[in-house]
Amino acid sequence: MFTFVPQYESLNEVLMDQKLASLGDAYVNFLYSLALSKKKGEATGIKVKGRLLADAFKRAELRKFLPSRIDRHKMADAAEALIVYAWIRGSMTMEEGLEILEQNGDEAEVLSLLLLTAKKKVEF
Amino acid sequence: MFTFVPQYESLNEVLMDQKLASLGDAYVNFLYSLALSKKKGEATGIKVKGRLLADAFKRAELRKFLPSRIDRHKMADAAEALIVYAWIRGSMTMEEGLEILEQNGDEAEVLSLLLLTAKKKVEF
Repeated sequence: MFTFVPQYESLNEVLMDQKLASLGDAYVNFLYSLALSKKKGEATGIKVKGRLLADAFKRAELRKFLPSRIDRHKMADAAEALIVYAWIRGSMTMEEGLEILEQNGDEAEVLSLLLLTAKKKVEF
Repeated sequence: MFTFVPQYESLNEVLMDQKLASLGDAYVNFLYSLALSKKKGEATGIKVKGRLLADAFKRAELRKFLPSRIDRHKMADAAEALIVYAWIRGSMTMEEGLEILEQNGDEAEVLSLLLLTAKKKVEF
């Protein structure tokens, strides 16, 4: 269905795809908003901050898959790219993503778990 | 699954739900970004402008379901609320929404078709 995204052969390629990050931004905001709505018991929309995504990315120890001199903005992009890539390839459904995000706990911790799950489920 | 949204008995209630509009904003941006990605053949993320949503809302002749003195911003909110409500209630899948948005033609026209389809599919 989503032939516009190439089937990548390495994690690094996914993390460096800026276009994928752009779509990922929209996906992550929606998924996170849904999870928050379920938690709060009322509909809500949220924009996930780049700082939070970058923190989660570092906690998931994904930093090593990117070139050494990379800023926080690029780490947030990489996180968004990975999360939407797992969904697009059918490796992680929206429901699976929601289940993870609904967990209680530190926001960056929960997001890093989402990243680790996405990484594990995507086969390279 | 999404018990945080009440089952409304009238279209007006859906259109006036500001919280639903907030979640709808995230959903519409994601759905529109997906459709655009498929059209362009490459991943892309976009924020759908309020002006465009309000135009589509008027074209779909939904204006009459809102109180008379309402600004463009509220019309855009109403459009977002209706679109996500149809998805949340299981009346219109993401695939169905995508199929409509992928059509060629004037952006406001295509979005108004999405609104009309959502309205028709949601049963009150």
